[in-house]
Amino acid sequence: MLEYSIIQTRGFANVTEGGRVTGFQLLVRMPNYRGAWGSLIDGADVTVDGVPFSRDVTRWTLRGRTFSLDELRRSTDVHWDLAELATLTVPLDGGLRAGVHDVAVTIYLRSPYIPAFVLPLRFEARRECTLVSSGGQAGFRYGVSLYSFTGDMNTLMTLEDAMADIADLGATGIEILTQSTVLGYPEPTPAWIDEWQRLLETYRLAPTNICSWVDNQMWTDRDLTAAEAAAQLASDVRLAHRLGFGFIRPKFGVVSPELDPHPTWEETVLRTLDLAASLNVVICPEIHSPTPIKHPVTQNYIEFIERTGTEHFKLMIDTGIFQTAVVNDGHPGFDEDEVPPFLQPLKVPMSDLAEALPYVGFIQAKFFEIDETLTDLHIPWDGILRTLRDGGYAGWLSSEYEGRREPYRGREQVRRQHALLRSLASDL
Amino acid sequence: MLEYSIIQTRGFANVTEGGRVTGFQLLVRMPNYRGAWGSLIDGADVTVDGVPFSRDVTRWTLRGRTFSLDELRRSTDVHWDLAELATLTVPLDGGLRAGVHDVAVTIYLRSPYIPAFVLPLRFEARRECTLVSSGGQAGFRYGVSLYSFTGDMNTLMTLEDAMADIADLGATGIEILTQSTVLGYPEPTPAWIDEWQRLLETYRLAPTNICSWVDNQMWTDRDLTAAEAAAQLASDVRLAHRLGFGFIRPKFGVVSPELDPHPTWEETVLRTLDLAASLNVVICPEIHSPTPIKHPVTQNYIEFIERTGTEHFKLMIDTGIFQTAVVNDGHPGFDEDEVPPFLQPLKVPMSDLAEALPYVGFIQAKFFEIDETLTDLHIPWDGILRTLRDGGYAGWLSSEYEGRREPYRGREQVRRQHALLRSLASDL
Repeated sequence: MLEYSIIQTRGFANVTEGGRVTGFQLLVRMPNYRGAWGSLIDGADVTVDGVPFSRDVTRWTLRGRTFSLDELRRSTDVHWDLAELATLTVPLDGGLRAGVHDVAVTIYLRSPYIPAFVLPLRFEARRECTLVSSGGQAGFRYGVSLYSFTGDMNTLMTLEDAMADIADLGATGIEILTQSTVLGYPEPTPAWIDEWQRLLETYRLAPTNICSWVDNQMWTDRDLTAAEAAAQLASDVRLAHRLGFGFIRPKFGVVSPELDPHPTWEETVLRTLDLAASLNVVICPEIHSPTPIKHPVTQNYIEFIERTGTEHFKLMIDTGIFQTAVVNDGHPGFDEDEVPPFLQPLKVPMSDLAEALPYVGFIQAKFFEIDETLTDLHIPWDGILRTLRDGGYAGWLSSEYEGRREPYRGREQVRRQHALLRSLASDL
Repeated sequence: MLEYSIIQTRGFANVTEGGRVTGFQLLVRMPNYRGAWGSLIDGADVTVDGVPFSRDVTRWTLRGRTFSLDELRRSTDVHWDLAELATLTVPLDGGLRAGVHDVAVTIYLRSPYIPAFVLPLRFEARRECTLVSSGGQAGFRYGVSLYSFTGDMNTLMTLEDAMADIADLGATGIEILTQSTVLGYPEPTPAWIDEWQRLLETYRLAPTNICSWVDNQMWTDRDLTAAEAAAQLASDVRLAHRLGFGFIRPKFGVVSPELDPHPTWEETVLRTLDLAASLNVVICPEIHSPTPIKHPVTQNYIEFIERTGTEHFKLMIDTGIFQTAVVNDGHPGFDEDEVPPFLQPLKVPMSDLAEALPYVGFIQAKFFEIDETLTDLHIPWDGILRTLRDGGYAGWLSSEYEGRREPYRGREQVRRQHALLRSLASDL
């Protein structure tokens, strides 16, 4: 699907020609209710951070063909469809800096059935757009969880849109959720699997982690037996493997306000470890606020790893545990008047992360809001990245946006996070 | 695509069982970020116009299977996917009246990984929904133009969504726009044509009118010759026929502030009439505000019909010419500070419509806003429908919403219009 905004989130990037950055480009959708012959396009003025770029220098790409404005005006056989985006390429030596930009576009269209004194029609659009640089690898692998697009998936975005977004911002990994993403769960339809494989190839993405649940209390009159819970986890481990994932995060039912996992968790994992080892899938319970690292639940997991010596059970760290400021945006499903415990700042110290790092398999780069100066209001990324680098972590940083669920907000926030992480990582 | 709102526009209807209206139903999308096993659904309270319906009586349909709440709680193998809508069926003898209703839904979900004292999660949604009755045919045929969904098409709705909407509100005709709807215009891709045919069959819709343009001034240095203009129109007439349309509306370039069509219009039509006759396509110039019926442009068209005796050139009436109050919402592409002439009330009298009716082939039921009491703020539908009925008009009324372009607004407004038209028509 195209984005509702005339200026699209995707595609905002610098342009390199012959090894030199010669300008930038952005994608716009047709602002009028009808498509137009290229000759009726009267150009587009682009303004970035208050700096205007004349419509005379901007090139247009439509249906894969590129035109100057003069060429467009004289053209006879190019058409701008409503379902097709136009690429505007603006010459600018060195391009734009990475980060958030204030982008305005005025598109001019002629339309012969409207009297000449009214023409051209003017369509104005303005928004903040984020340009992500390709630097700042620092040994990490960057990915995105589809949780970031909650609310937008199936309504504003298809799975393909999500993958295109992830690839467009320069990430190479995708994290999904069993019950949310996989059509026909627990048994995906063959058509869904085919599409999943096709999209991974098209967008060159690697499956990272799949989030799953062991719903121990799925009925009110009795809990799952350990055998039932293990069967549930085993089914999801097989699904993970079938879809190409190397990590699976099971969320167990809890039995206390302190989030103690259901007592069958250990037997459930023990029964599944051989299968996980044979399929090379690592089971990662999530260390998530309000549970810190120095807490019996986390320490029990670490002891389990030590005791069994397994390579297929590791910790997943959700970076929400490092949160330093309260998140006041509420959370869908929870009482609006109270801040849920997991949105309170838990402020786990970096030394705890360093200590636990040998047991960590995967990192969900949880965040809530990054402002237009690329400042994260809640999560101390500089410390986290330094600690990870110093500890030799070379795995995934999988973006997990959990802020306000306004349409399209997650897409833009994830771009900001990647711009921020890559900027910090390149300074390490 | 699913609608962003938890309560969907589509699917709100009364339910008939054994010839008796026994209740109503509505479609809701999963409000949480993950899908759920049916046993974790703790029901949904529905309130309509302030009247509550307990969650204990509402039935759930998921993946084609219907459950009481108790059956759902005990279920072991039904799953509510994020990509799938749940149908809530609420028992109510006689159902709901046609028209706009204030609908509120609270959905309750359990989630074992969240401590019990927080559960169930509560998700609240509320919106106005319109129920359309199936009565009020009065000899008319009801259709919808995709112009109504401008802005939403390709962003929030696919072509299939648009067709599903049209069928869901009880209309049987679809009007499209060549340059806006047809992917790859002027030569649609074979895949697009296949999909078009498949969707027409699936939703049992008849193609009505296709809007096209003859862009006489598509270049700035010269106009199309009459031969070029005729070739343009002929190409679109062939396209209309290929897609199953019986009417085509060409919009000619204009040469004066009074909207006089390009002087080649007559030769253009004359050159195309034989083709149109052989393909049984009727060419219909649009009588659109600010041009009334008693105006040289319209009268010239009527004289042309009289002179040639053709059956394949008729008037299309856009009901905006009957507008009685100014529309202050502006129009995309036009200066914001002025009300464009076509949004001023032209107030064409019904006697003019009666007089022109023998020459009318198609009616675009243009409107701008219908409020929650089913009152149209600008268009006098009662007079229009009476005049059409009295004049023996038995053709299409094709909804054309042209009000504010807010996401999803057109979908809901078109439902309101059909509820209004059918209510008025049933009283004729």
